[in-house]
Amino acid sequence: MRKIYVIGIGAGNPDHLTLQAAKAIGRTDVFFVLDKGEAKESMIELRRRLMKAYGRPSRRIAEGVDPARDRTPADYQGTIADWRHRRSEVTEALISEHLLDGETGSFLVWGDPSLYDSTIAILDEILARGQTLFEYAVIPGVSSVSALAAKHRVPLNRVGRPFQVTTGRRLADEGFPDGVDDVVVMLDAQQAFTAHPDADIYWGAYLGTEDEILRSGRVSEVADDILATRAEARARHGWIMDTYLLRRPER
Amino acid sequence: MRKIYVIGIGAGNPDHLTLQAAKAIGRTDVFFVLDKGEAKESMIELRRRLMKAYGRPSRRIAEGVDPARDRTPADYQGTIADWRHRRSEVTEALISEHLLDGETGSFLVWGDPSLYDSTIAILDEILARGQTLFEYAVIPGVSSVSALAAKHRVPLNRVGRPFQVTTGRRLADEGFPDGVDDVVVMLDAQQAFTAHPDADIYWGAYLGTEDEILRSGRVSEVADDILATRAEARARHGWIMDTYLLRRPER
Repeated sequence: MRKIYVIGIGAGNPDHLTLQAAKAIGRTDVFFVLDKGEAKESMIELRRRLMKAYGRPSRRIAEGVDPARDRTPADYQGTIADWRHRRSEVTEALISEHLLDGETGSFLVWGDPSLYDSTIAILDEILARGQTLFEYAVIPGVSSVSALAAKHRVPLNRVGRPFQVTTGRRLADEGFPDGVDDVVVMLDAQQAFTAHPDADIYWGAYLGTEDEILRSGRVSEVADDILATRAEARARHGWIMDTYLLRRPER
Repeated sequence: MRKIYVIGIGAGNPDHLTLQAAKAIGRTDVFFVLDKGEAKESMIELRRRLMKAYGRPSRRIAEGVDPARDRTPADYQGTIADWRHRRSEVTEALISEHLLDGETGSFLVWGDPSLYDSTIAILDEILARGQTLFEYAVIPGVSSVSALAAKHRVPLNRVGRPFQVTTGRRLADEGFPDGVDDVVVMLDAQQAFTAHPDADIYWGAYLGTEDEILRSGRVSEVADDILATRAEARARHGWIMDTYLLRRPER
């Protein structure tokens, strides 16, 4: 039987790695990498560093080309479902070609694999097709949400209160959800926080890395700085990964 | 200056510890422990094990008595605020008595410090009083939410969709939040999931420990088993810590 680990490697800082993740890296024969075709050098560099530090000398790397994806689709969910499907085909080919019977393969996932990552869904889709068989396990990691809260030293929830994790698109379309005053926004191409000048924002980009940028304060006071900082950093790095907690006074 | 770490130690499994957390434990002169006065032996044992494995031989332990707390208050938020306040006084006394200038003290927090834990709020309250001064940093950990999702190999969110983290009390009072079909329930003394027979549940107790119990399925089919299993385990251990993801078909 083939075995696969989906390993959460934490949010940028190599020391976010858990002992469980380090041990799983050490048991891995083949690392699967889908080249995103983007200049996310620091991500690639982190993976390389972790493999070198905790991997076997005999480890192999199986690289596939990530299918292209429409970044501004009209039908977001349909486009993502289609992209996942194509991704699952590329991934299945990698597994069936490179992972031998009795071997262990791993995917190194930024943050935590349960949060806005498609690896679990892709493996389930492959298994559902029934052509390529394997066992798999998920190893949890420090999420970018936990890393953000830690750097700002702020709890995600208020006492006895809920919080919601959502996308910038939803926040822009629907505003604060009913009954929720604390929202974590994972993916926001449109800086939806600017519509909430009375809220407090805890913002972070490139969390955990040497390029980390943090900003916090009342939106009305810090929004311009965040917008300018974000645009400048994105232009300089060629990409950006940022997330924020938006907290408004309780209603 | 005194330095304090609030260290997330992960959700039960000693190997959930991050390298960053292990290093912080190794830099700690004094560990602060508030005795919960409960039979949470496996929690105490985990802390002891981590201190022994990664701590300095010269480490000290400063123990305080956690103030009593009404577990079924009429005014939940007011009661918690009052409890936090009394807790901050006990904690402040511990810090000012046991942590010397130039030393480092640590709190070892179950899961991730940003999620339904009061340590950050308590330290902020102490600092706001201005009598006991220190620097502090938060070290993120694997949350019980990530551990739950990993064990069930299930993403917390669906594509482009939000999810909400909330309490059993809120789910019982208000049902599924508007626009949300995926809810993580952190604290649930009343098993609010039973009101949602058509949802799928991913339930876990004592996550990450040797006593871990997992159940999943359609609520209508597994609720009785979860209720019986939970009651039996709680009686046997004298306490229970459980959490679950409740997922209903998209509307």
